[in-house]
Amino acid sequence: MNKNLLCLALCMFLVLSISAQKIMGFTEAAAQKQIAWEKLLDENIQASNQDQYMQFLTSHPHHVGSPQDEKNAKYMADLFKKWGYQTSIESYYVLFPTPKLRKLELLGDNYFNASLMEPVVKEDKTSGQLDEQLPPYNAYSADGDVTAELVFVNRGVPADYEELDRRGISVKGKIVIAKYGGSWRGIKPKVAAEHGAIGCIIYSDPADDGYARGDTYPKGGFRPKEGAQRGSVMDMPIYPGDPLTPNIGATKDAKRLKIAEVKTIMKIPVIPISWGDALPFLKSLQGEVVPPSWRGGLPITYHIGPSNEKVHLQLAFNWDIKKINDVIAKIPGSVWPDEWVIAGNHHDAWVNGAQDPISGMVAELEDARAIGELVKKGFAPKRTIVFCAWDGEEPALLGSTEWAEDHQKEIQQKAVAYINTDDNGRGYINAGGSHTFEPFFNEIIEQVIDPETGVSLKERKYAQKLVNAKSTDRSKLMNEKDMKLDALGAGSDWGSFLQHLGIPTLQLGFGGEEKGTQYHSTYDSYDFFTRFIDPHFFYGVALSQTTGRVIMRLANAELMPIDFTSFYTTLCSYIDQIKKMLSDTRRETADLTEMQKEKLFSLVEDPDVVYAAPKEEKPVPFLNFSSLDNAMVSLKKASETFKNLYKKGFLLSADKKKKLNEILYKAEQSLLQQKGLPNREWYRHQIYAPGFYTGYGVKTIPGVRESIEQRKWNEAQTNIVIVANTIQNYTAQILAANKLLE
Amino acid sequence: MNKNLLCLALCMFLVLSISAQKIMGFTEAAAQKQIAWEKLLDENIQASNQDQYMQFLTSHPHHVGSPQDEKNAKYMADLFKKWGYQTSIESYYVLFPTPKLRKLELLGDNYFNASLMEPVVKEDKTSGQLDEQLPPYNAYSADGDVTAELVFVNRGVPADYEELDRRGISVKGKIVIAKYGGSWRGIKPKVAAEHGAIGCIIYSDPADDGYARGDTYPKGGFRPKEGAQRGSVMDMPIYPGDPLTPNIGATKDAKRLKIAEVKTIMKIPVIPISWGDALPFLKSLQGEVVPPSWRGGLPITYHIGPSNEKVHLQLAFNWDIKKINDVIAKIPGSVWPDEWVIAGNHHDAWVNGAQDPISGMVAELEDARAIGELVKKGFAPKRTIVFCAWDGEEPALLGSTEWAEDHQKEIQQKAVAYINTDDNGRGYINAGGSHTFEPFFNEIIEQVIDPETGVSLKERKYAQKLVNAKSTDRSKLMNEKDMKLDALGAGSDWGSFLQHLGIPTLQLGFGGEEKGTQYHSTYDSYDFFTRFIDPHFFYGVALSQTTGRVIMRLANAELMPIDFTSFYTTLCSYIDQIKKMLSDTRRETADLTEMQKEKLFSLVEDPDVVYAAPKEEKPVPFLNFSSLDNAMVSLKKASETFKNLYKKGFLLSADKKKKLNEILYKAEQSLLQQKGLPNREWYRHQIYAPGFYTGYGVKTIPGVRESIEQRKWNEAQTNIVIVANTIQNYTAQILAANKLLE
Repeated sequence: MNKNLLCLALCMFLVLSISAQKIMGFTEAAAQKQIAWEKLLDENIQASNQDQYMQFLTSHPHHVGSPQDEKNAKYMADLFKKWGYQTSIESYYVLFPTPKLRKLELLGDNYFNASLMEPVVKEDKTSGQLDEQLPPYNAYSADGDVTAELVFVNRGVPADYEELDRRGISVKGKIVIAKYGGSWRGIKPKVAAEHGAIGCIIYSDPADDGYARGDTYPKGGFRPKEGAQRGSVMDMPIYPGDPLTPNIGATKDAKRLKIAEVKTIMKIPVIPISWGDALPFLKSLQGEVVPPSWRGGLPITYHIGPSNEKVHLQLAFNWDIKKINDVIAKIPGSVWPDEWVIAGNHHDAWVNGAQDPISGMVAELEDARAIGELVKKGFAPKRTIVFCAWDGEEPALLGSTEWAEDHQKEIQQKAVAYINTDDNGRGYINAGGSHTFEPFFNEIIEQVIDPETGVSLKERKYAQKLVNAKSTDRSKLMNEKDMKLDALGAGSDWGSFLQHLGIPTLQLGFGGEEKGTQYHSTYDSYDFFTRFIDPHFFYGVALSQTTGRVIMRLANAELMPIDFTSFYTTLCSYIDQIKKMLSDTRRETADLTEMQKEKLFSLVEDPDVVYAAPKEEKPVPFLNFSSLDNAMVSLKKASETFKNLYKKGFLLSADKKKKLNEILYKAEQSLLQQKGLPNREWYRHQIYAPGFYTGYGVKTIPGVRESIEQRKWNEAQTNIVIVANTIQNYTAQILAANKLLE
Repeated sequence: MNKNLLCLALCMFLVLSISAQKIMGFTEAAAQKQIAWEKLLDENIQASNQDQYMQFLTSHPHHVGSPQDEKNAKYMADLFKKWGYQTSIESYYVLFPTPKLRKLELLGDNYFNASLMEPVVKEDKTSGQLDEQLPPYNAYSADGDVTAELVFVNRGVPADYEELDRRGISVKGKIVIAKYGGSWRGIKPKVAAEHGAIGCIIYSDPADDGYARGDTYPKGGFRPKEGAQRGSVMDMPIYPGDPLTPNIGATKDAKRLKIAEVKTIMKIPVIPISWGDALPFLKSLQGEVVPPSWRGGLPITYHIGPSNEKVHLQLAFNWDIKKINDVIAKIPGSVWPDEWVIAGNHHDAWVNGAQDPISGMVAELEDARAIGELVKKGFAPKRTIVFCAWDGEEPALLGSTEWAEDHQKEIQQKAVAYINTDDNGRGYINAGGSHTFEPFFNEIIEQVIDPETGVSLKERKYAQKLVNAKSTDRSKLMNEKDMKLDALGAGSDWGSFLQHLGIPTLQLGFGGEEKGTQYHSTYDSYDFFTRFIDPHFFYGVALSQTTGRVIMRLANAELMPIDFTSFYTTLCSYIDQIKKMLSDTRRETADLTEMQKEKLFSLVEDPDVVYAAPKEEKPVPFLNFSSLDNAMVSLKKASETFKNLYKKGFLLSADKKKKLNEILYKAEQSLLQQKGLPNREWYRHQIYAPGFYTGYGVKTIPGVRESIEQRKWNEAQTNIVIVANTIQNYTAQILAANKLLE
C-alpha cells in the first residue's frame, strides 16, 4: 500500500468511526451535531467553578429558615439569571420543627448527661459556627418527657422485634436504643411506637461509619466519637412533603391540617446521638447478650436489656411554619417549549452540607452555566430545560414535593423527565430510575471518560462489577457490559416526580472511593469534602458531563429515547423474585410448622436462656398470577414491536412526531393508580416505591411484594390484579405508539 | 377387649419393644444382656465423683515436668489400681522448652513494655499460684532477640499474605502480629517465616473470644483484657511427638536427633499475648486500613503497617529433657485378651486446665470406675479394655505419640479402636472419627438421654441441625436423623492412632452451650468450669454414659460393629468435593486470566491505594480420576455385599469369627501408605490428615486435595492413583471378610 492509499484508508476509517456514533432519538446527522455540542460542554465544565460555588454555599449552616439558606437561594437565582435563564424563586410555607429543649440522662448511680453536641474541630473551619447550627435532633419527633428503662433493639426493624419476642422481652413502656443503619431512620421510632415504646434513641455505631471502618475525623474521614447523624423521622413512607398540606402545594393560603390531625409526625420522642454519648447507656443494659448479628463495634459486651437504671428523655420543639425557597430556572425550548426536561437537586442542608447536598448542587450549577454558554454559542434545545434548586429536602423533601403538588397538572402535561443529582462522591457511576432509559443511559456512559482511569464510565463500572463479583458469578456476568439501572426507593427529591406523578426519572452520582462519611453531621464541610470525598472535583466534573449529556439529549432528541423492552426485562425479574419469595415463604412456613410439631425448637433450648420458637404461621396459599403473566405477554410483544418500529418515527410528520413523543414520555404515568398503594394513596406508582418498613430501600411492585411480606394473602391477590391492569394500561400506550408508527 | 386380653396385649407389646432393641455386633440375646449392663453403667456414673477428681487434678498447675503433673499421674494410677485395673506408669523423656526470658517492647516515643502475664483474679482461687504457673509462651518457639517494624497479618495464613502482596507490603525482616484463630497457631509463625519475617506475635482479639462475644471473666466466661492463650507452635503437621525421636518411642536410651537437626521447631521467635498487651502495638501501625474481613473487635482503626516505631522481641528458653508419665490401666479380655479397646485422654495442662483436659479426663475416670464396678458384679468384657491418661499432649501430643511409636507393632496387632474425650462442654454431642463407626455410634446416641431435655442425644442433635440450618437447606435435611461423624484433623491424642497407625478412632465430647472460653489460660480453672462450662457435671455424666457404652460394646461385641457403606458414602462426598474444587479452580483461573487480559483490575484501582491484580496463574488442567472412580465402584459393591452378609458372621466358628474380626478392625490400616503423605511421611492415612496449612483443620484425601490447593498438578495426579490403590487395598480386606461370610 502506498502512502496516499494508507492515508485514504485511515481517513475512511475515521469517517466511518465517527459516523458510527449513533445516539438514540437522533438521526445520524443530528447525532453528529449533538456530539459536537457535548464536546463543547465537556470543555466548558470547570472544576474551579464547582469549588467556588461550594465555598459560598457551605460557608455557613444553611438549613430551612436559616439566613444562609435564603442567601444561597438568592446566590443561585442570581447565577442562573446571569447565565441567561428565566429565573424565579418560588416559596412555600411549611411546618418545620426545631429544637427548643433536648435532654437525655442516665439516672441512678452512674448518672450521665448526654452532651448532644458536636464539638469544634480546629482543622474544620466551619465547625465552630455553633450559634448558627441546628444541633443533633430528629425533625418531626414528638415533644415528650419520658423516664423508663432502656432496651437495645439492634436496627429497630420488625425482624428485630421478632427476636425480642422470642427472648420474652417487651419494649412496652420502655425507651429503646437502636443503631443507625439497616433501614431509614424514621422506621426505628415508628416500629418502636408500634410495639409500645415511649421513647427512642438512635446512635451511630463505630462498626457502621466510625473507627472500625477507617480513621476518624479530622485524621481520617470517618465519624468521630462525638459525631451524630441529624435527620428527619417523619413517616414519609405514608407521604412526604409538608405534613399539613398533603397532596396540595403549601402556598401561603393553602388549606392546612391541624398538627393533631397529621399522621406522619412521629408519635414518640426520638433523638440521634453519637457513640460517645451512647456508650454509658449501652453499658447500663442488663439481661442477655445480644445475638451475634446485633453486635456493634464498641469495646463492650452488648446486652439487650432492660437496664436497671432509668433513662430520662425530654424533648420540646418550636413547631413553626417556615418559608422555603425553590429556585426555578428555565431556558425555553426552540421547538417544543411545552415539553420540559427538569434537572433538580436540593440546596438546604442539616448544617454546612458539603457532600449532602452541595456536591450534587455544584454539578448542576456548572451544567446550567455551561449549557447557558452553549446557548449563547447557538445551541438551541428543542425542549425547555428547567433547572431547580430545592429547599427543605432534609426535613421531608419539602421543596420538591410542594412544587410538584402545586404544579402537578402542568408537570404531568409537560415534564418529559426528571433528573436528580443528590450527593456526589468519587469512583464509579451509580444510577437509578425508570428502566425505559437503560439503553439511552448506557450510550451516555460509554462516552463520558472516567477521570482516574481514562476509560469510559461504563467500562469502569463493568470492571467494578466483575472484580467485586463472587467468583461463582463471574462467568455469568462476563460480557454483560450494559449497566443496569437501580430501582428508586426514597431518599431524595425524585419521589414526587416518579412515585406521585409518574415522570420518567434518573438519579445520578458517583461513589465507592470516598475516604469516609460525615452524613448529616456538622463535619460534612468544605474542609471535609475536599480532603476525603472529591478533593479536586474530578468527579464533580464527571457528574456535570454525564448529567449535562442526559439533559441536552433529552432536550434535543427528535424522538424520546425510550426502550420498553428494558422495562419489560426488568419487570420480569421483579415478578420472578416475588414468585420465588412466595414459594420460599411457603416452603419455610411448612418446614417451621413441621419443626414445631416435632418440638425441635424446644429441644435446642438452653435452660439458662429464654428463646422461644418462632411464631407459628398458617400455611401459605398459592396465588393466581395468571392475570399478571398474561399482561406480561402483551407487554413483551408490544415492546418488541415498538423497538422494531422505532426508527420509523423519524419519518413521521411534525404533528405525529409530537403526538408520538407525548405518548412516550407520558407512558410512565399509566403505571400510576389514582388510589395509590395499600394504605398510602400518595404513592401511586405500581412498580417503584420506598418500602413501608425500610424507608430508603425500594420495594418493586410494592402492592404485591409488601402484601406477601406481611402475609396478607387477599391483599396480595387483589394487588396482583391491580398490577396486571396497570401493565395492560401501560401496554395500551405502547400499542398507541406502535399504531402511529405502523 | 376384656381386661386380661388388654393386659396380655400390653405385655406382648413391651416384650416386643424390648426385643426390638438390637445392637450392632451382638446377637439379640447378647444385646439384651449388654443393655442391662449399660443400664447399670448409667446408674453407676456419679457427677459428684467427677467433681471430686476435678478438684484434685486442677488444684495446682500441672504442666509437663511440674510436681502436680507427676502427682496427678500417681493419683490416677492409684485410682485405677483401686478399681481393679492392671496399672502402670510408662515414662518417656522428651524435649520440652520452658521460658527463661520473655521480653516484648514497643520502642520509641510511645514506649510500652508488654506485661506478658495473667493477673490474679480474686474470684478464681487457683489464679494466684503464680510461682507454679508457666507464663504465657509458645512452646518450641525459637530463641531470639529481634528488633524491627511491625506488620499486621490478620490470621497469618497463606491467603493473608496474598492480600499483603497485592498491597505491596512485604514482611521480610519485619516482626508480624497475627490474630489467634483461622488456623492452628503454629501455622502463623511458620508461614510468617516462609515470607521472611523475623519474629511473630499472636494475640487474642476480643472479637473472637473476648468482650464482643460475652461478658468477660470473672463477670462472665469470656477471655478478659489480660487473658492470653499459651500453646505449642511445633510444626506438628510434619510430625507430632518428641521432636528428637520421630517414629520411635522417646525411651531413656532412644537414639535422638540433635536440636539443630530437628525440622519441627519453629524457626523464628514467637509469643502469645492478651489484647491488653496487643493494643499499643496495634495502635503503632501505620499504612493502609485493613480490609473489612481483617478487622477485630478493638476500639481502633486496624492498619496493616508497617509501624513507624520498632518492636523488640527477645525470647530465651530452657531446652530441657523432661520426663512424662503416661498412665496405662487394663482389664484383660475374657475371650480375646489380645484385642484391645483403648480409651484415652491427656492429663497435662498448660496451667490448671479444668476444661482442657480435665473435663474429658474425669469422664474417662468415672467410666473406668463404673466399668470396674460392673466387672466386680460379673461383667466380663470379651476384649481387653485399656484406659490411658496421657502426659504432654499440650506441647506436642507427646505422651500418646511416644507410647504409640514405642508400641506400634503391638498396637497395630491388637487395637480394635481408640476413643478420645479431650475437652468436654455442655449442649450437643460432637463426634468425629472413622466413618465405618457411623451406624454403631448412632445406635448409642439413640439410647443416651440428654440431661437438659430428656430426649436422646440423637434427637437433640437432629433438632440442633434443623434449627440452625439455613432455611433453604431445611427441607433437604428434614428426616436425615442420623448423625454424621466429622472427619478428624489434629488437636488431640487420636493423631498417632488414626493417622500414623490406622486404628479406627472416635473423638467424643459435648458443646454448644458453654458460657465462655479460657482456652489455654490460667483462668481455665475449677472455678471457671463450674460456673460457665458444665456447672453440675451433667454433661460429664452424659459423656461417661456415651463413652462407656462405646467402650463396653466394642469390648463385648461378637462381631466388630463396622459398616463399610457409611465409609463409602462419606468418601464419595469427599471425592465430589475435590472434583468440584478442581473445576471451580479451573473456572476461576480462566475468569481471572480473562479479567487480567481486559485489564479490569487496573480499572478498579483507586489512585490513592496500592492494590495490584491477583497473581496470574496458568490454566488448570483436567486430571484423570478414572482409577479412583473405578476403585470406588469396587468398594461400593464389596461394602454392600458385606452389609448383606454381616449377620451370617454370628454363625461362624469361633476361629473364623476371630479371623473375621481381625480383618474388620485391621481394615482401617489398609488405608495407610508406608511412604506417608507428600513431604510428611509420618502421616500415613490417605483419607484423614490435619491440613498442612490449617493445622487443626482436617483435609480429607489430603494427598490429592492439598496438591490441588497448591496447584501441584503432577503431584495431584500421582496421588489420585495412590489413593485409588489404597482404596483397592481396603476393598481387598472387605472381599476377604466377604469370603469368610459366604
